Amino acid sequence: MLRSVIRAWRYVVGRDGREEVDPADIREAVDPKQGVVWIDATSPEDEEALHALKAELGLGATVVDAILNPRERTKLMRYGDYFHVAVHDCARVRDTVDSREIDVVTGPGWMLTVRHPSANGSQVDFDEVARRFEMQRTEHHTTEEGFLLWALFDVIVDRYFEVVDTIDDRLGEIEDAVFREPPPPGIPQTTFEVRRDLTTIRRAAAPMREVVNAVIRKEIEFVDDQAIVHFHDIYDRVLRVGDLVESQRDLLTGLLEANLAVTSNQLNQVMKKMTSWGAILIVATLIAGIYGMNFRHMPELQWEFGYPLALGFMALATFVLWRWFKKKGWL
Amino acid sequence: MLRSVIRAWRYVVGRDGREEVDPADIREAVDPKQGVVWIDATSPEDEEALHALKAELGLGATVVDAILNPRERTKLMRYGDYFHVAVHDCARVRDTVDSREIDVVTGPGWMLTVRHPSANGSQVDFDEVARRFEMQRTEHHTTEEGFLLWALFDVIVDRYFEVVDTIDDRLGEIEDAVFREPPPPGIPQTTFEVRRDLTTIRRAAAPMREVVNAVIRKEIEFVDDQAIVHFHDIYDRVLRVGDLVESQRDLLTGLLEANLAVTSNQLNQVMKKMTSWGAILIVATLIAGIYGMNFRHMPELQWEFGYPLALGFMALATFVLWRWFKKKGWL
Amino acid sequence: MLRSVIRAWRYVVGRDGREEVDPADIREAVDPKQGVVWIDATSPEDEEALHALKAELGLGATVVDAILNPRERTKLMRYGDYFHVAVHDCARVRDTVDSREIDVVTGPGWMLTVRHPSANGSQVDFDEVARRFEMQRTEHHTTEEGFLLWALFDVIVDRYFEVVDTIDDRLGEIEDAVFREPPPPGIPQTTFEVRRDLTTIRRAAAPMREVVNAVIRKEIEFVDDQAIVHFHDIYDRVLRVGDLVESQRDLLTGLLEANLAVTSNQLNQVMKKMTSWGAILIVATLIAGIYGMNFRHMPELQWEFGYPLALGFMALATFVLWRWFKKKGWL
Amino acid sequence: MLRSVIRAWRYVVGRDGREEVDPADIREAVDPKQGVVWIDATSPEDEEALHALKAELGLGATVVDAILNPRERTKLMRYGDYFHVAVHDCARVRDTVDSREIDVVTGPGWMLTVRHPSANGSQVDFDEVARRFEMQRTEHHTTEEGFLLWALFDVIVDRYFEVVDTIDDRLGEIEDAVFREPPPPGIPQTTFEVRRDLTTIRRAAAPMREVVNAVIRKEIEFVDDQAIVHFHDIYDRVLRVGDLVESQRDLLTGLLEANLAVTSNQLNQVMKKMTSWGAILIVATLIAGIYGMNFRHMPELQWEFGYPLALGFMALATFVLWRWFKKKGWL
Amino acid sequence: MLRSVIRAWRYVVGRDGREEVDPADIREAVDPKQGVVWIDATSPEDEEALHALKAELGLGATVVDAILNPRERTKLMRYGDYFHVAVHDCARVRDTVDSREIDVVTGPGWMLTVRHPSANGSQVDFDEVARRFEMQRTEHHTTEEGFLLWALFDVIVDRYFEVVDTIDDRLGEIEDAVFREPPPPGIPQTTFEVRRDLTTIRRAAAPMREVVNAVIRKEIEFVDDQAIVHFHDIYDRVLRVGDLVESQRDLLTGLLEANLAVTSNQLNQVMKKMTSWGAILIVATLIAGIYGMNFRHMPELQWEFGYPLALGFMALATFVLWRWFKKKGWL
Repeated sequence: MLRSVIRAWRYVVGRDGREEVDPADIREAVDPKQGVVWIDATSPEDEEALHALKAELGLGATVVDAILNPRERTKLMRYGDYFHVAVHDCARVRDTVDSREIDVVTGPGWMLTVRHPSANGSQVDFDEVARRFEMQRTEHHTTEEGFLLWALFDVIVDRYFEVVDTIDDRLGEIEDAVFREPPPPGIPQTTFEVRRDLTTIRRAAAPMREVVNAVIRKEIEFVDDQAIVHFHDIYDRVLRVGDLVESQRDLLTGLLEANLAVTSNQLNQVMKKMTSWGAILIVATLIAGIYGMNFRHMPELQWEFGYPLALGFMALATFVLWRWFKKKGWL
Repeated sequence: MLRSVIRAWRYVVGRDGREEVDPADIREAVDPKQGVVWIDATSPEDEEALHALKAELGLGATVVDAILNPRERTKLMRYGDYFHVAVHDCARVRDTVDSREIDVVTGPGWMLTVRHPSANGSQVDFDEVARRFEMQRTEHHTTEEGFLLWALFDVIVDRYFEVVDTIDDRLGEIEDAVFREPPPPGIPQTTFEVRRDLTTIRRAAAPMREVVNAVIRKEIEFVDDQAIVHFHDIYDRVLRVGDLVESQRDLLTGLLEANLAVTSNQLNQVMKKMTSWGAILIVATLIAGIYGMNFRHMPELQWEFGYPLALGFMALATFVLWRWFKKKGWL
Repeated sequence: MLRSVIRAWRYVVGRDGREEVDPADIREAVDPKQGVVWIDATSPEDEEALHALKAELGLGATVVDAILNPRERTKLMRYGDYFHVAVHDCARVRDTVDSREIDVVTGPGWMLTVRHPSANGSQVDFDEVARRFEMQRTEHHTTEEGFLLWALFDVIVDRYFEVVDTIDDRLGEIEDAVFREPPPPGIPQTTFEVRRDLTTIRRAAAPMREVVNAVIRKEIEFVDDQAIVHFHDIYDRVLRVGDLVESQRDLLTGLLEANLAVTSNQLNQVMKKMTSWGAILIVATLIAGIYGMNFRHMPELQWEFGYPLALGFMALATFVLWRWFKKKGWL
Repeated sequence: MLRSVIRAWRYVVGRDGREEVDPADIREAVDPKQGVVWIDATSPEDEEALHALKAELGLGATVVDAILNPRERTKLMRYGDYFHVAVHDCARVRDTVDSREIDVVTGPGWMLTVRHPSANGSQVDFDEVARRFEMQRTEHHTTEEGFLLWALFDVIVDRYFEVVDTIDDRLGEIEDAVFREPPPPGIPQTTFEVRRDLTTIRRAAAPMREVVNAVIRKEIEFVDDQAIVHFHDIYDRVLRVGDLVESQRDLLTGLLEANLAVTSNQLNQVMKKMTSWGAILIVATLIAGIYGMNFRHMPELQWEFGYPLALGFMALATFVLWRWFKKKGWL
Repeated sequence: MLRSVIRAWRYVVGRDGREEVDPADIREAVDPKQGVVWIDATSPEDEEALHALKAELGLGATVVDAILNPRERTKLMRYGDYFHVAVHDCARVRDTVDSREIDVVTGPGWMLTVRHPSANGSQVDFDEVARRFEMQRTEHHTTEEGFLLWALFDVIVDRYFEVVDTIDDRLGEIEDAVFREPPPPGIPQTTFEVRRDLTTIRRAAAPMREVVNAVIRKEIEFVDDQAIVHFHDIYDRVLRVGDLVESQRDLLTGLLEANLAVTSNQLNQVMKKMTSWGAILIVATLIAGIYGMNFRHMPELQWEFGYPLALGFMALATFVLWRWFKKKGWL
């Protein structure tokens, strides 16, 4: 039954590839000197399976509680000889960026990963994690728990960059929209959505820095120097994600302000046009009104060419005013 | 008389459950080796009761003063062999988030809690605190003052999360309102209320971090390592409350800006419509005005179909202008 | 002559109350083992008096300069065996918050306070300072300079809280005004005044923290541990003043933004009403204009009920448009 | 030739006043035990003179480069046994605040000051520097390089305060303008100019703090304790300049927001008036239009008092509407 | 083949100038005691060449990976006895500021530079780098790797200043535009572009500070004290770039706010004019309308001078209203 939600593999030192392990035999399979066992649980809500694991790996109640209640901040915490790392994966699926907790519990010779379901269904590709780990295994001859953790972090940080890239695209779209003539509707809503995405990615990536830093400071003693060099690289890339997100926030604010300024300028333009045309037309109307008065003694009314003159006068007034407003830049 | 506002319980080491203690016998009941006595005072304004406690527990005048004047910042302060911890509970009742000081004085073998009344009447559920303490007691065999404090903090931090959740809901409502067509009135007021709530929860939660950190740094020497592991968890959760509140502030600002942009866009739209219709109608009016002039020689006036022609001309001008404004996107 | 601007009192150890000392005999009166002499100078601009004090207390020229030129930041500075503390009192009198420097020079066995006149005439109540000092003297048996300084700080921090409270009241008034219908004029000005008040109190209170912290770190060696416990309390309260001021700034910003949003919404409302009524009335005017045309062949003009029909038509058009705009929410 | 751009004075220990030194004899004149030689170069662009000084004082090429290229940040840098201090003077001349680098190179027994020309021609008054140095020389018997540096800093910081004062005045003017009825034009431009001034003074004063702090930390070993007490005072005053500039930025932001709110309110007011008068006049026009219709059967037209009745009707409609809008607060 | 994308030069100690080295013989050419070899690769995408270099210089796979994937933050990283420095060059070409990674790998006796192509084609002038390095070589007799790195950094920081200068120019143009009457269109877009430029330069320059600081802290042990003095200078200049960029951001924000205030004021002005002229013209129209009514008994209509009187009345009303609005400052 356990096998339906939990899978486990063993990587043996000096041997390529991995072999599947029965989740019920994890305790026997774990041997720090022989290699590393990776246990992957995809249904953390299945408490029974988790408690079986608890017994197999000798986990404390606090860790199991923390895994069952995934309202954690990205963090690294020591429990005796093993560690609990809660990280947040981030991905964009269909216009929303969603962040999801992945709990990692790692001790000498084993690593347990627990993936919590995300709102948009996106999943970290664990095959890719396995592939990268395999690549490093063949190059380095060293204890391997560190590289397994590194492979997971590496894939997650790559996903951060993917999110940052899609946000870059959306910022480009907003920029085009803001400065198009006329600006299409929906800019405020799109802007707000991007801001929410930025909040999500920042909330996921910012505490990651501290965790990676803790690994670099050798808080996890079974991660050795060769792996730590690679964690340095992840650290720099997490910093860069942070820099990029900050820049994007900055540009987003700039776009919002530009949008407001554009709207404000347009309003001014519209009001000036309105005032101008209003004045022009009302002057013509006034002339028509004057010659619509019923005074007995209005000599113009008797003139042969009174009517065309009046029309001409209207046209002239209209033209003169139009020129005047044009020159003032109101039209 | 004391019993009406003060209650006390004794938890004896190795024995499940608690036994009620007469507040008048607290001095005798306290014995750090035997267990912990929890004294709960619900009416801090009852100075007489407090001074009785002062005598029983050997409290200093400064502590009693601090309890009687609950204008404290969340803090942890040592007085000889006991400690004064002032924390702020936070809860949402009927649309307002209110924060309330809870004074905790704890020494070896005893803990005194003093609850100050909040504006909205919400109270920390002390039965829940007792329940969580009981849970830990059965698991750990250790000095117990630390776990009692932890249970209290745990419940309070849970209440922070509840407040954060209700604020999330309200943010969702505001978002719906901002992007609805047309936006309902009252958005500025709701936004301001949420901002006040955020200020309240932040003021309560931010100094909590320092207090928990002080406990983790073992400033309270009778809180032992087993309890401190649990305080680490609280520390992470307080950090997370801070992160969430910051995100919410950010989103709130984003909503306000979006609201302003939406309003501004709408104003533009309205002004364009206004200008367009004004121009269309005034042109028709001008035509009517022209044929209302009283010139003797206006050939059109004599035409058989002058009137329908004039009406047709008006309709045509209206239609042409309407099309033109439509194409410009003003209508 | 000195006595008109300078007063001095001696507190003798083990004796209640104080005795007035002739300012000319200060040198003889000061004896750290016997107690503390408090000298209070209310006219710092009287240089002669100050220079007399300089001789009596052996002050350096730099200190006297600093006192005569009260453009100081709140600070604590050591000069040989005595200290110069410049603090800023803050009070609200008639709608303005004003901050005023109080120079304190204190050495073993003496404390000199120099009050500079404030723009709004408010003065720290030194009788209250004396009263609080007296209260502590009777409780603690210790060197007393620390408690005298504490009493002064305690009164000043209380005054900070008073200012914060009046600002709370004004924020409440502004909130009422912003969301009233219609908002009364003057909100921007009041908001700006409160902002200035917040700037003033913040400028006074923020460096206070550092000074109190320096005292707690025992930079003034004759302030003993008993007094330092009380300075801890002041430290917490100064922090809380800072927290409150930050919250108030936050709320003020929120109110300004709400005000802008409200104004913006109202403008939208007004413009919509304007557009609607303009359209309605101009349609009626157009109908009137049409039947004011002078065409020979306008059958309606000959009809018996042409006129009432035209009026009815106008009324109908008005009503239909009114309903239409009402439905669109523009009226 | 050198004498035209370079002047030098020697202050001999134990002797009042200074004696002029031929710039060509500086090397002989410098003797740390005898006193201090102050060399003042006013034309740093005269490379020849500077290189002569380089030889006389044994300066490195890097320092001379730094002096010739005054794009430096305020800083303190050690070169062997002498120091390069680049500070920025700040002054307001004719509506602009300008900042100018002053390079100071000081070693045991000598100080070289190089003044770069500022855009607005304002110069630090070096006679005042000399005067203050003289004042301290007579009081303290100590190595004198520190007090010479102090005198220069003291004058520069005083100039910062002067700039801050003029900005205070301008803020007062802006405040008057913002809340005047109607606000005069030009507020945005003045506000922006003040913001630029604040940026300039901040850029000059902020790094000054670090430099003074470095002096206080005894990085320049020939500045002795007596001088350092005076540098403490400068440090506090630089902090205060920073505080004041921050407050002024804050108030400036407040004024801008108030201006925006005032403008926005006025726009609302204007729009309401416009709507009201438009409605009133168009109703009257409509009545006139109705009685201008040419229906054969319009009984009112035949009435004896039709015309005055119509006029009265117009007046009545106008009055009723005027009252109505007045009551609604739109007029 | 290698020679087409990779060039190398050797600087021999004690000998002026440099000699070209065949890239295939780099391994033999490198000898820390003899001098420094500079290898410059301009086509990092040519993996073959890079892997040849990898073999020649004994680089690790991680470094080569980092060079091939230039998504790095400016950083300094140690790999055994050599270092990887990733810096970002910044230049403005045709209205956009573009930033480009330059990878530097340096070990004892050699330095490899890899330039990545930038979007706008601008390239760091490596001849200038060589020239500056040559200048320092002749002056200092020391290990030379440090000065080569310094020369590169020096040129890059100079380019930062050039970018800052062009931004200064653009800010000046925006300022002129904002306060011109009437403001030209396009201000929001230009402002946004400058903001993006500021984001780019800041992202390039900010981490540079940390790298230079690491060099100053002697993390690269073969950079000796003479070179470090020069890195101090670069550090100060990078700080100054940061200060200038911050000031420019501040001014940009100020310009945006000024623009908004100006637009807002203009809108007010336009609305007032509109209201005024609308009222004036509608009053005249109303008068015309009144005398266009068809009442039988309208005595004025029969007057000899009724018509000119009516015209005069219109003119009078127009003039009176015009004066009135003028006095109110609406026209």
